[in-house]
Amino acid sequence: MTASQSAKPGKSAFRPLPVPQVDIRGFWGDRVDAVASRTADILYDRCVEAGMLDQIDPDRDPPGVRIPFHVNDGFTASTVTTQMFWDSDLGKTIETAAYSLYRRKNDALERKIDAVIDMYAKLQQPDGYLSSWYQRVQPGKRWTNLRDCHELYCAGHLIEGAVAYYQATGKRKLLDVMCRYADHIAAMFGPEPDKKKGYCGHEEIELALVKLARVTGERKYMDLAKYFIDQRGQQPHYFDEEARARGADPKDFHFKTYEYNQSHKPVREQDKVVGHAVRAMYLYSGMADIATEYGDDSLRIALDRLWDDLVSKRLYVTGGLGPSADNEGFTSDYDLPNETAYAETCAAVGLVFWASRMLGMGPNARYADIMERALYNGSISGLSLDGSLFFYENPLESRGIHNRWKWHRCPCCPPNIGRMVASIGSYFYSLSDDALGIHLYGDSTARFEVGGRPVSLTQTSRYPWDGKISIAVEPDAPTEFTLHLRLPAWCGKAALRVNGVEVDLDEVVSDGYAAIRREWHKGDRVELDLDMAVARLFANPEVRQDVGRVALSRGPLIYCVEETDNAGQLHRVALPRTATIEAHDEPNLLGGVVTLSAAARRDASENWESGLYRTEPPAVDETKLTAVPYFAWDNREPGEMLVWLRSS
Amino acid sequence: MTASQSAKPGKSAFRPLPVPQVDIRGFWGDRVDAVASRTADILYDRCVEAGMLDQIDPDRDPPGVRIPFHVNDGFTASTVTTQMFWDSDLGKTIETAAYSLYRRKNDALERKIDAVIDMYAKLQQPDGYLSSWYQRVQPGKRWTNLRDCHELYCAGHLIEGAVAYYQATGKRKLLDVMCRYADHIAAMFGPEPDKKKGYCGHEEIELALVKLARVTGERKYMDLAKYFIDQRGQQPHYFDEEARARGADPKDFHFKTYEYNQSHKPVREQDKVVGHAVRAMYLYSGMADIATEYGDDSLRIALDRLWDDLVSKRLYVTGGLGPSADNEGFTSDYDLPNETAYAETCAAVGLVFWASRMLGMGPNARYADIMERALYNGSISGLSLDGSLFFYENPLESRGIHNRWKWHRCPCCPPNIGRMVASIGSYFYSLSDDALGIHLYGDSTARFEVGGRPVSLTQTSRYPWDGKISIAVEPDAPTEFTLHLRLPAWCGKAALRVNGVEVDLDEVVSDGYAAIRREWHKGDRVELDLDMAVARLFANPEVRQDVGRVALSRGPLIYCVEETDNAGQLHRVALPRTATIEAHDEPNLLGGVVTLSAAARRDASENWESGLYRTEPPAVDETKLTAVPYFAWDNREPGEMLVWLRSS
Repeated sequence: MTASQSAKPGKSAFRPLPVPQVDIRGFWGDRVDAVASRTADILYDRCVEAGMLDQIDPDRDPPGVRIPFHVNDGFTASTVTTQMFWDSDLGKTIETAAYSLYRRKNDALERKIDAVIDMYAKLQQPDGYLSSWYQRVQPGKRWTNLRDCHELYCAGHLIEGAVAYYQATGKRKLLDVMCRYADHIAAMFGPEPDKKKGYCGHEEIELALVKLARVTGERKYMDLAKYFIDQRGQQPHYFDEEARARGADPKDFHFKTYEYNQSHKPVREQDKVVGHAVRAMYLYSGMADIATEYGDDSLRIALDRLWDDLVSKRLYVTGGLGPSADNEGFTSDYDLPNETAYAETCAAVGLVFWASRMLGMGPNARYADIMERALYNGSISGLSLDGSLFFYENPLESRGIHNRWKWHRCPCCPPNIGRMVASIGSYFYSLSDDALGIHLYGDSTARFEVGGRPVSLTQTSRYPWDGKISIAVEPDAPTEFTLHLRLPAWCGKAALRVNGVEVDLDEVVSDGYAAIRREWHKGDRVELDLDMAVARLFANPEVRQDVGRVALSRGPLIYCVEETDNAGQLHRVALPRTATIEAHDEPNLLGGVVTLSAAARRDASENWESGLYRTEPPAVDETKLTAVPYFAWDNREPGEMLVWLRSS
Repeated sequence: MTASQSAKPGKSAFRPLPVPQVDIRGFWGDRVDAVASRTADILYDRCVEAGMLDQIDPDRDPPGVRIPFHVNDGFTASTVTTQMFWDSDLGKTIETAAYSLYRRKNDALERKIDAVIDMYAKLQQPDGYLSSWYQRVQPGKRWTNLRDCHELYCAGHLIEGAVAYYQATGKRKLLDVMCRYADHIAAMFGPEPDKKKGYCGHEEIELALVKLARVTGERKYMDLAKYFIDQRGQQPHYFDEEARARGADPKDFHFKTYEYNQSHKPVREQDKVVGHAVRAMYLYSGMADIATEYGDDSLRIALDRLWDDLVSKRLYVTGGLGPSADNEGFTSDYDLPNETAYAETCAAVGLVFWASRMLGMGPNARYADIMERALYNGSISGLSLDGSLFFYENPLESRGIHNRWKWHRCPCCPPNIGRMVASIGSYFYSLSDDALGIHLYGDSTARFEVGGRPVSLTQTSRYPWDGKISIAVEPDAPTEFTLHLRLPAWCGKAALRVNGVEVDLDEVVSDGYAAIRREWHKGDRVELDLDMAVARLFANPEVRQDVGRVALSRGPLIYCVEETDNAGQLHRVALPRTATIEAHDEPNLLGGVVTLSAAARRDASENWESGLYRTEPPAVDETKLTAVPYFAWDNREPGEMLVWLRSS
């Protein structure tokens, strides 16, 4: 099959509903409220405390030496620090603030963001270039180390921030700044002989340029995104040539292999999910956008291979990914250590980005099931219930010393989880010319147009605590379109009724979605009943760390046991295969959750005075085990936590 | 209880039989042959290849920069390398060669060692000082960094080498050199006002000075050893003052806490086994020697507390110790990770040293049982069966990538295991004025004197493969003394006969030893029958890494499963509690071993196409499990290995 390079998107292209078109209530409403009322302000305050404004404001002294980073060839070693990606942290902070403004008026924050934008406008060079680190800390070095220094990555996040802020406030200032910068980038990079053939060591610019193209209607930004993707990993290798141009040896690359930044081979030839997990997710997200926009099957095929690799060999049951701290990323197949899991919040957020963009090629539960799992578990575990504290790593087991932080020396995760939560509405639905896909369930109202006709769609549900969903479809006038309703893979028994009439799912389900095509009228009701039984999950026995163990889930939620609900030393507990697991509504616990409980066994301490080892097995006590949703852990007393329980 | 500072040893002091007084055959005979015929030469050759002779030979250029080490305050950073402990590697190489000469004439090696000794004699300064690194690489810096630079540690190992070489060859040259150096050290360190109040950051000199005192009869060396022990950890802290004298901040100590080198408090107040594991073992060995020689109960009490801490909270089932690579040592109670176990060969060797010295205070199975476990498992695992390859780390689980090395950048372990094996006879027996303790069993003949009367004692046994031991006691003339026969803790059923007459063990056993006091005559026979059943061992449930798991043992040997005898992915295997485990003599396997086998279960791979996780537990296949002695692992094809099997 040859690559389709069609300039027009495929007919079935689905695009997410813009954030303000979805009102979120219920479970996600609480999360969005926490971000809009606390996290958005906290992000700005902590960026300021970190000294970021000293770097972008041309009227201040640039900041001194900060936390060192691992780049030193051809650069001023003492000044190569985490500062080099501060523009990205501000970009994501602006983006979080923008989405939060839809939820809650916040004039004080808006004024602060406006001031930051003024600084960026003032900092921008006459040719459009804009990088606070290169301009203020490494002057004269621009475009000399795309491999390590996050230059286009920072541009990408500022573009995303600019697009979101424009959409939320109507203010074009940052958008105009970033268009000028994007024009400059387009003048520097491209296939033309006089342009650089490079791309960023940390992907991000690609998906950002797609957003910029969509909001401005400027095709050239889309083409530039496609160029960066097409060029990645081609020979001669840009990062080799760039290193030599700096007088450095390409072999001195800190991470040794270009798998680290997914430039080890052209993207269409890639078949393993490798390297730095966040970079991988951002690349694949950009590839998915381009596959959708250009109807490019060659990218879609590569993405499907990569997806299969991830979900069949390299994904935690929480939707977390990237087990190793060494490369902040992937190791070998089935290597999924629990206690040392890196599973960066940003990586799970990135997986949500990728999965949602795979849905751009049409509703498919293959992607939406994983998106839901990453959303409800491994990503929002990164934000405390009150929106004030963060996890960078999201292990599946803890001895009690892994606790939420106020901030991180590399503060990428806090604004990433902030912007994802604040824009959650856009992950619920995607729209094509004549169809709406419902990917996520939960109390919410969406507004959209089909064939020029406004439609309102309201879900009423206690999801994820209950599987009953009632959907009111309210077109302004009768309108024919297809409603694609996801039937989650975790659900063993689903029932669907349209205006009270049972639908035979066997006849309408494809790719895990029930497709209901009809002329919709005001007052139409769709009722979906998803059986939400507690499930025991077992890992493929290739996963050495989970063998003989079991994880508990209910609906989209993965559960864990915490020390505070159980005795300590959770490793002593074993859950019998035959134990009945009960679900309990606990409206006053952790903001309102369903807990699970079961009778279990616990290795006892008696008679170990003689030493560490003996021929008599430990005595076993009866105990009761209580599990809470994984996303909610470490919101009470610090203590041990365990997802994969011993199964006996 | 106040400290007894008696100048005379306690009456019951037991000292190991000198190496040449024990002829070893059988299991240990094979090991000694491997060392004498291969390892001893290999050690010398690899020390030469590493460039060590360039450092000690005053007629050559000193070596260039080698592998950097983590010391740089007040020193020439670029030259602070692993070279600083090369004298110790040569000392242990000389010691291994010396013991090997008892076993096998090796004129070529002896000539090479003589040449090395000539170099040291030539290198020694007129005042007696001798350190190739300080003299050749850091001139002018002597005695300025006892904390980090292994100066007295190197002296200790050269003393041990000198004593052994003198005993084996009668050649005094190195012994005289080291006596002069010890005299110099005694002139530098001590309680007198004009002397330094220091001691070495890496203990070793203490036990070496005891050996030197014993062989020379010079009391002052013993007193110096005692001084180093008494002074350790006293305030004001020597390492603080020494750092400040170098112009360094004591807080910049790389390892942060003086627990690292056991100088965090005076030794008699210590109650936790902490820090660098080898250092700890060498310190406790020296303390035990001094406790024996001075009848010092205050040291014995501290040692008993430390022993209890080690064996009840911090010791692997293999007798390995020190789980962490970060400090090459101890972490927290019950923290015994299997795959990442550091468990340095030197640490298990050091535990054998300590345990054997605890027996200096009288036969006690509390110490001898652990000595035997460390000997047969976690220490000799560090040497390949043919004596040519080494382990530095001795994990209890491997994915197949942990394999034996030709050498190590820090080559402490190869000569340490070499000298221990080559001197194994001295661990079998210890002798007091009127008693012989038999701590280890195995085909061997010991010669010793009681009350001036020569006695020969011959064990005939297939131990450790069989628990039947026949002991012929052959005094030159009838002699009364006590024979202490160890009844191993692993043995559930023992029978003892003297000249065919059953002994009631209840009447004669104390501290795990059967004491037979009688007038012994030529032709007396003692028969010991130790039931050698296969045992399942369970760990205290405080050990999170071993919960739900079982280790197999038979006699003194801990077993493991290797990929080569089983299918790969050993984590899939579970051993049912009810499975019968059979022992098989395998004379042609791994130099002749007893293997264990059992019917077991194995998680199957079927039907995992849909992803990593599912609600159906894995199917289980019947399989056969074959285990081999842990010490013999990684002597065939590289592959996975596992000690703690899942128990089902």
